[in-house]
Amino acid sequence: MSMANELKEWDKIILGIDPGTNVMGYGVLGVKCNKPMMITMGVIQLNKFDDHYMRLKRIYDRVLGIVENYLPDELAIEAPFFGKNVQSMLKLGRAQGVAIAAALSREVPITEYEPRKIKLAITGNGGASKEQVQEMIRRQLDIPKENLLPQLDATDALAAALCHYYELKKPAVAHAAKDWKAFIAAHPDRVKK
Amino acid sequence: MSMANELKEWDKIILGIDPGTNVMGYGVLGVKCNKPMMITMGVIQLNKFDDHYMRLKRIYDRVLGIVENYLPDELAIEAPFFGKNVQSMLKLGRAQGVAIAAALSREVPITEYEPRKIKLAITGNGGASKEQVQEMIRRQLDIPKENLLPQLDATDALAAALCHYYELKKPAVAHAAKDWKAFIAAHPDRVKK
Repeated sequence: MSMANELKEWDKIILGIDPGTNVMGYGVLGVKCNKPMMITMGVIQLNKFDDHYMRLKRIYDRVLGIVENYLPDELAIEAPFFGKNVQSMLKLGRAQGVAIAAALSREVPITEYEPRKIKLAITGNGGASKEQVQEMIRRQLDIPKENLLPQLDATDALAAALCHYYELKKPAVAHAAKDWKAFIAAHPDRVKK
Repeated sequence: MSMANELKEWDKIILGIDPGTNVMGYGVLGVKCNKPMMITMGVIQLNKFDDHYMRLKRIYDRVLGIVENYLPDELAIEAPFFGKNVQSMLKLGRAQGVAIAAALSREVPITEYEPRKIKLAITGNGGASKEQVQEMIRRQLDIPKENLLPQLDATDALAAALCHYYELKKPAVAHAAKDWKAFIAAHPDRVKK
Protein backbone atom coordinates (compact mmCIF):
# COMPACT_ATOMS: atom_id res chain seq x y z
CA MET A 1 0.00 0.00 0.00
CA SER A 2 1.42 3.36 -0.97
CA MET A 3 2.06 6.19 1.48
CA ALA A 4 -0.62 8.28 -0.24
CA ASN A 5 -3.24 5.57 0.34
CA GLU A 6 -2.22 5.17 3.95
CA LEU A 7 -2.60 8.92 4.48
CA LYS A 8 -6.11 8.88 3.03
CA GLU A 9 -7.30 6.89 6.05
CA TRP A 10 -6.96 9.87 8.39
CA ASP A 11 -9.64 12.52 8.91
CA LYS A 12 -6.97 15.02 9.89
CA ILE A 13 -3.21 15.08 10.25
CA ILE A 14 -1.50 17.50 12.63
CA LEU A 15 2.25 18.07 12.63
CA GLY A 16 3.74 19.20 15.94
CA ILE A 17 7.13 20.86 16.12
CA ASP A 18 9.30 21.78 19.10
CA PRO A 19 12.00 23.93 17.52
CA GLY A 20 15.34 24.33 19.21
CA THR A 21 18.77 25.35 18.01
CA ASN A 22 20.42 22.10 19.18
CA VAL A 23 17.64 19.53 18.74
CA MET A 24 14.30 19.93 16.99
CA GLY A 25 11.52 17.53 17.89
CA TYR A 26 8.65 16.59 15.59
CA GLY A 27 5.55 14.49 15.95
CA VAL A 28 2.84 13.59 13.46
CA LEU A 29 -0.64 12.98 14.84
CA GLY A 30 -3.40 11.31 12.84
CA VAL A 31 -7.06 11.69 13.78
CA LYS A 32 -9.64 9.08 12.79
CA CYS A 33 -13.23 8.97 14.08
CA ASN A 34 -12.30 11.52 16.77
CA LYS A 35 -9.45 9.34 18.01
CA PRO A 36 -5.96 10.87 17.91
CA MET A 37 -3.10 8.45 17.20
CA MET A 38 0.63 8.81 16.72
CA ILE A 39 1.76 8.34 13.10
CA THR A 40 5.41 9.05 13.79
CA MET A 41 7.77 11.13 15.90
CA GLY A 42 11.45 11.91 15.92
CA VAL A 43 14.19 14.44 16.44
CA ILE A 44 16.42 16.41 14.11
CA GLN A 45 19.92 16.51 15.57
CA LEU A 46 21.54 19.87 14.96
CA ASN A 47 24.47 19.96 17.37
CA LYS A 48 26.64 17.96 14.96
CA PHE A 49 26.75 21.03 12.71
CA ASP A 50 29.06 23.82 13.83
CA ASP A 51 27.86 26.16 11.12
CA HIS A 52 24.74 28.12 11.98
CA TYR A 53 23.47 28.12 8.37
CA MET A 54 23.98 24.37 8.04
CA ARG A 55 21.70 23.98 11.05
CA LEU A 56 19.06 26.24 9.55
CA LYS A 57 19.32 24.46 6.19
CA ARG A 58 18.93 21.11 7.97
CA ILE A 59 15.79 22.31 9.78
CA TYR A 60 14.32 23.65 6.54
CA ASP A 61 15.05 20.49 4.53
CA ARG A 62 13.81 18.09 7.21
CA VAL A 63 10.61 20.00 8.00
CA LEU A 64 9.89 20.33 4.27
CA GLY A 65 10.50 16.58 3.90
CA ILE A 66 8.11 15.77 6.76
CA VAL A 67 5.46 18.11 5.31
CA GLU A 68 5.77 16.50 1.87
CA ASN A 69 5.75 12.94 3.29
CA TYR A 70 2.87 13.25 5.72
CA LEU A 71 0.88 16.10 4.14
CA PRO A 72 -0.30 17.58 7.45
CA ASP A 73 -3.48 19.70 7.46
CA GLU A 74 -2.08 21.90 10.20
CA LEU A 75 1.13 22.72 12.02
CA ALA A 76 1.25 23.29 15.77
CA ILE A 77 4.46 24.85 16.97
CA GLU A 78 5.76 25.14 20.52
CA ALA A 79 6.87 28.75 20.84
CA PRO A 80 8.31 30.20 24.03
CA PHE A 81 7.73 33.94 24.15
CA PHE A 82 10.47 34.67 26.64
CA GLY A 83 14.04 33.55 26.81
CA LYS A 84 17.28 34.08 28.61
CA ASN A 85 18.68 36.86 26.43
CA VAL A 86 18.24 38.67 23.12
CA GLN A 87 21.05 36.66 21.50
CA SER A 88 19.44 33.28 22.20
CA MET A 89 16.00 34.60 21.20
CA LEU A 90 17.34 35.76 17.83
CA LYS A 91 18.75 32.27 17.20
CA LEU A 92 15.53 30.62 18.35
CA GLY A 93 13.54 33.01 16.15
CA ARG A 94 15.63 32.01 13.14
CA ALA A 95 15.15 28.29 13.86
CA GLN A 96 11.40 28.86 14.20
CA GLY A 97 11.47 31.04 11.07
CA VAL A 98 12.96 28.41 8.76
CA ALA A 99 10.59 25.72 10.13
CA ILE A 100 7.65 28.10 9.61
CA ALA A 101 8.88 28.91 6.08
CA ALA A 102 8.92 25.20 5.18
CA ALA A 103 5.28 24.88 6.29
CA LEU A 104 4.22 28.17 4.67
CA SER A 105 5.83 27.13 1.37
CA ARG A 106 3.28 24.28 1.26
CA GLU A 107 0.38 26.43 2.51
CA VAL A 108 0.07 24.62 5.85
CA PRO A 109 -1.71 26.81 8.44
CA ILE A 110 0.26 27.38 11.65
CA THR A 111 -0.83 27.78 15.25
CA GLU A 112 1.63 28.43 18.04
CA TYR A 113 1.36 27.47 21.68
CA GLU A 114 3.31 28.55 24.71
CA PRO A 115 5.05 25.63 26.48
CA ARG A 116 2.92 26.23 29.60
CA LYS A 117 -0.31 25.92 27.64
CA ILE A 118 0.80 22.64 26.06
CA LYS A 119 1.82 21.14 29.41
CA LEU A 120 -1.47 22.23 30.94
CA ALA A 121 -3.50 20.68 28.09
CA ILE A 122 -1.61 17.37 28.25
CA THR A 123 -0.91 16.88 31.97
CA GLY A 124 -3.26 19.33 33.72
CA ASN A 125 -0.17 21.08 35.11
CA GLY A 126 1.45 24.03 33.34
CA GLY A 127 4.72 23.39 35.16
CA ALA A 128 4.97 19.66 34.33
CA SER A 129 8.37 18.15 33.54
CA LYS A 130 9.25 16.77 30.10
CA GLU A 131 9.13 13.26 31.62
CA GLN A 132 5.58 13.84 32.86
CA VAL A 133 4.58 15.12 29.41
CA GLN A 134 6.09 12.01 27.83
CA GLU A 135 4.24 9.67 30.21
CA MET A 136 0.89 11.40 29.63
CA ILE A 137 1.43 11.43 25.86
CA ARG A 138 2.26 7.71 26.01
CA ARG A 139 -0.99 6.95 27.87
CA GLN A 140 -3.25 9.24 25.84
CA LEU A 141 -1.98 7.95 22.51
CA ASP A 142 -1.46 4.29 23.60
CA ILE A 143 2.18 4.30 22.56
CA PRO A 144 4.01 1.08 23.55
CA LYS A 145 6.87 1.88 25.94
CA GLU A 146 9.42 0.38 23.56
CA ASN A 147 8.41 2.89 20.88
CA LEU A 148 9.35 5.89 23.01
CA LEU A 149 12.51 7.76 22.08
CA PRO A 150 15.18 8.72 24.60
CA GLN A 151 14.92 12.32 23.39
CA LEU A 152 12.05 14.05 25.13
CA ASP A 153 11.84 16.68 22.38
CA ALA A 154 9.94 14.16 20.23
CA THR A 155 7.12 13.70 22.78
CA ASP A 156 7.18 17.47 23.39
CA ALA A 157 6.45 17.98 19.70
CA LEU A 158 3.71 15.35 19.77
CA ALA A 159 2.30 17.18 22.79
CA ALA A 160 2.06 20.39 20.73
CA ALA A 161 0.10 18.50 18.06
CA LEU A 162 -2.20 16.87 20.65
CA CYS A 163 -2.72 20.22 22.40
CA HIS A 164 -3.80 21.68 19.04
CA TYR A 165 -6.18 18.76 18.50
CA TYR A 166 -7.81 19.43 21.90
CA GLU A 167 -8.10 23.13 21.00
CA LEU A 168 -9.81 22.28 17.71
CA LYS A 169 -12.26 19.97 19.51
CA LYS A 170 -13.36 22.69 21.93
CA PRO A 171 -16.81 24.11 21.13
CA ALA A 172 -16.45 27.30 19.10
CA VAL A 173 -17.94 29.40 21.90
CA ALA A 174 -15.12 28.36 24.21
CA HIS A 175 -12.67 30.09 21.89
CA ALA A 176 -14.64 33.31 21.96
CA ALA A 177 -15.62 33.67 25.58
CA LYS A 178 -14.67 32.36 29.00
CA ASP A 179 -18.06 32.83 30.67
CA TRP A 180 -21.57 34.06 29.90
CA LYS A 181 -20.64 37.62 30.75
CA ALA A 182 -17.85 37.59 28.17
CA PHE A 183 -20.07 35.75 25.68
CA ILE A 184 -22.81 38.39 26.01
CA ALA A 185 -20.27 41.17 25.66
CA ALA A 186 -19.02 39.53 22.47
CA HIS A 187 -22.49 38.82 21.03
CA PRO A 188 -24.83 41.69 22.04
CA ASP A 189 -27.15 40.81 19.11
CA ARG A 190 -27.98 37.44 20.68
CA VAL A 191 -29.36 39.01 23.85
CA LYS A 192 -33.15 39.38 24.03
CA LYS A 193 -33.95 42.87 25.15
CA MET B 1 16.36 39.98 -24.82
CA SER B 2 15.30 37.53 -22.17
CA MET B 3 16.00 38.01 -18.47
CA ALA B 4 18.23 34.91 -18.49
CA ASN B 5 20.43 36.42 -21.22
CA GLU B 6 20.66 39.72 -19.41
CA LEU B 7 21.82 37.94 -16.28
CA LYS B 8 24.58 36.15 -18.18
CA GLU B 9 26.37 39.47 -18.64
CA TRP B 10 27.35 39.70 -14.97
CA ASP B 11 30.46 38.11 -13.45
CA LYS B 12 28.74 37.94 -10.07
CA ILE B 13 25.37 38.86 -8.64
CA ILE B 14 24.97 39.68 -4.95
CA LEU B 15 21.58 40.03 -3.27
CA GLY B 16 21.49 42.28 -0.22
CA ILE B 17 18.66 42.08 2.30
CA ASP B 18 17.79 44.32 5.24
CA PRO B 19 15.13 42.31 7.04
CA GLY B 20 12.66 44.00 9.30
CA THR B 21 9.25 43.08 10.63
CA ASN B 22 7.55 46.16 9.14
CA VAL B 23 9.55 46.79 5.97
CA MET B 24 12.16 44.57 4.32
CA GLY B 25 14.61 46.18 1.94
CA TYR B 26 16.37 44.36 -0.90
CA GLY B 27 18.99 45.33 -3.43
CA VAL B 28 20.56 43.36 -6.26
CA LEU B 29 24.13 44.20 -7.18
CA GLY B 30 25.76 43.06 -10.41
CA VAL B 31 29.54 42.94 -10.81
CA LYS B 32 31.17 43.17 -14.24
CA CYS B 33 34.91 43.63 -14.85
CA ASN B 34 35.36 44.48 -11.14
CA LYS B 35 32.77 47.23 -11.33
CA PRO B 36 29.74 46.88 -9.05
CA MET B 37 26.43 48.23 -10.40
CA MET B 38 22.87 48.30 -9.16
CA ILE B 39 20.56 45.89 -10.99
CA THR B 40 17.50 46.68 -8.89
CA MET B 41 16.36 47.61 -5.40
CA GLY B 42 13.07 47.81 -3.58
CA VAL B 43 11.13 47.26 -0.39
CA ILE B 44 8.64 44.66 0.75
CA GLN B 45 5.88 46.40 2.70
CA LEU B 46 4.74 44.26 5.61
CA ASN B 47 2.83 46.64 7.85
CA LYS B 48 -0.32 46.25 5.76
CA PHE B 49 -0.64 42.70 7.13
CA ASP B 50 -1.94 42.40 10.69
CA ASP B 51 -1.30 38.67 10.80
CA HIS B 52 2.21 37.69 11.79
CA TYR B 53 2.21 34.58 9.56
CA MET B 54 0.98 36.54 6.55
CA ARG B 55 4.01 38.79 7.00
CA LEU B 56 6.36 35.83 7.20
CA LYS B 57 4.72 34.21 4.17
CA ARG B 58 5.09 37.49 2.26
CA ILE B 59 8.79 37.71 3.10
CA TYR B 60 9.34 34.09 2.07
CA ASP B 61 7.45 34.42 -1.23
CA ARG B 62 9.05 37.72 -2.22
CA VAL B 63 12.62 36.70 -1.33
CA LEU B 64 12.14 33.41 -3.19
CA GLY B 65 10.80 35.36 -6.18
CA ILE B 66 13.82 37.69 -6.15
CA VAL B 67 16.20 34.72 -5.87
CA GLU B 68 14.51 32.95 -8.79
CA ASN B 69 14.39 36.12 -10.93
CA TYR B 70 17.93 37.38 -10.42
CA LEU B 71 19.74 34.12 -9.57
CA PRO B 72 22.18 35.72 -7.11
CA ASP B 73 25.48 33.94 -6.43
CA GLU B 74 25.47 35.11 -2.82
CA LEU B 75 23.21 36.66 -0.22
CA ALA B 76 24.44 39.37 2.16
CA ILE B 77 22.12 40.01 5.05
CA GLU B 78 22.13 42.91 7.50
CA ALA B 79 21.81 41.28 10.92
CA PRO B 80 21.78 43.25 14.15
CA PHE B 81 23.00 41.10 17.03
CA PHE B 82 21.40 43.14 19.75
CA GLY B 83 17.94 44.58 20.09
CA LYS B 84 15.61 46.27 22.49
CA ASN B 85 14.08 43.18 24.07
CA VAL B 86 13.72 39.42 23.71
CA GLN B 87 10.23 39.76 22.21
CA SER B 88 11.36 41.99 19.32
CA MET B 89 14.46 39.83 18.76
CA LEU B 90 12.32 36.70 18.43
CA LYS B 91 10.19 38.45 15.79
CA LEU B 92 13.27 39.75 13.98
CA GLY B 93 14.82 36.28 14.13
CA ARG B 94 11.72 34.82 12.50
CA ALA B 95 11.75 37.43 9.73
CA GLN B 96 15.45 36.73 9.14
CA GLY B 97 14.74 32.98 9.32
CA VAL B 98 12.15 32.89 6.55
CA ALA B 99 14.33 35.12 4.31
CA ILE B 100 17.30 32.82 5.00
CA ALA B 101 15.15 29.76 4.27
CA ALA B 102 14.17 31.15 0.87
CA ALA B 103 17.86 31.59 -0.02
CA LEU B 104 18.88 28.22 1.45
CA SER B 105 16.13 26.46 -0.51
CA ARG B 106 17.97 27.56 -3.68
CA GLU B 107 21.44 26.80 -2.26
CA VAL B 108 22.50 30.47 -2.14
CA PRO B 109 25.38 30.97 0.34
CA ILE B 110 24.70 33.55 3.05
CA THR B 111 26.98 36.01 4.83
CA GLU B 112 25.71 38.30 7.54
CA TYR B 113 27.01 41.71 8.52
CA GLU B 114 26.36 43.87 11.54
CA PRO B 115 24.82 47.26 10.65
CA ARG B 116 27.93 49.02 12.02
CA LYS B 117 30.22 47.06 9.75
CA ILE B 118 28.12 47.88 6.67
CA LYS B 119 28.02 51.59 7.50
CA LEU B 120 31.77 51.60 8.06
CA ALA B 121 32.44 49.86 4.73
CA ILE B 122 30.21 52.23 2.75
CA THR B 123 30.70 55.58 4.47
CA GLY B 124 33.85 55.14 6.56
CA ASN B 125 31.75 55.83 9.66
CA GLY B 126 30.16 53.00 11.68
CA GLY B 127 27.61 55.39 13.12
CA ALA B 128 26.47 56.93 9.80
CA SER B 129 22.79 57.78 9.27
CA LYS B 130 20.61 55.98 6.72
CA GLU B 131 20.62 59.19 4.65
CA GLN B 132 24.43 59.22 4.57
CA VAL B 133 24.45 55.55 3.55
CA GLN B 134 22.00 56.33 0.75
CA GLU B 135 24.10 59.24 -0.53
CA MET B 136 27.32 57.20 -0.52
CA ILE B 137 25.59 54.26 -2.21
CA ARG B 138 24.23 56.67 -4.84
CA ARG B 139 27.71 58.00 -5.57
CA GLN B 140 29.55 54.66 -5.48
CA LEU B 141 27.05 52.98 -7.78
CA ASP B 142 26.32 56.01 -10.00
CA ILE B 143 22.58 55.83 -9.35
CA PRO B 144 20.68 58.80 -10.84
CA LYS B 145 18.94 60.76 -8.08
CA GLU B 146 15.52 60.18 -9.64
CA ASN B 147 16.01 56.41 -9.31
CA LEU B 148 16.34 56.55 -5.52
CA LEU B 149 13.41 55.30 -3.46
CA PRO B 150 11.93 57.27 -0.56
CA GLN B 151 12.38 54.16 1.63
CA LEU B 152 15.92 54.08 2.96
CA ASP B 153 15.65 50.32 3.62
CA ALA B 154 16.29 49.72 -0.10
CA THR B 155 19.67 51.52 -0.11
CA ASP B 156 20.46 49.85 3.24
CA ALA B 157 20.00 46.47 1.55
CA LEU B 158 22.11 47.54 -1.40
CA ALA B 159 24.74 48.66 1.13
CA ALA B 160 24.83 45.13 2.59
CA ALA B 161 25.44 43.73 -0.91
CA LEU B 162 28.17 46.31 -1.65
CA CYS B 163 29.80 45.70 1.74
CA HIS B 164 29.93 41.99 0.88
CA TYR B 165 31.48 42.80 -2.51
CA TYR B 166 34.22 44.83 -0.78
CA GLU B 167 34.82 41.94 1.65
CA LEU B 168 35.19 39.48 -1.23
CA LYS B 169 37.71 41.79 -2.93
CA LYS B 170 39.97 41.91 0.13
CA PRO B 171 43.13 39.77 -0.19
CA ALA B 172 42.58 36.32 1.35
CA VAL B 173 45.17 36.89 4.07
CA ALA B 174 43.22 39.83 5.42
CA HIS B 175 40.38 37.44 6.26
CA ALA B 176 42.64 35.08 8.13
CA ALA B 177 44.80 37.35 10.22
CA LYS B 178 44.98 40.94 11.39
CA ASP B 179 48.75 41.14 11.71
CA TRP B 180 51.87 38.97 11.31
CA LYS B 181 51.62 37.70 14.88
CA ALA B 182 48.11 36.40 14.24
CA PHE B 183 49.14 35.06 10.83
CA ILE B 184 52.05 33.10 12.35
CA ALA B 185 49.81 31.75 15.10
CA ALA B 186 47.35 30.56 12.44
CA HIS B 187 50.03 29.04 10.15
CA PRO B 188 52.84 27.60 12.31
CA ASP B 189 53.87 25.30 9.41
CA ARG B 190 54.88 28.32 7.34
CA VAL B 191 57.46 29.50 9.88
CA LYS B 192 61.09 28.54 9.19
CA LYS B 193 62.56 27.09 12.34
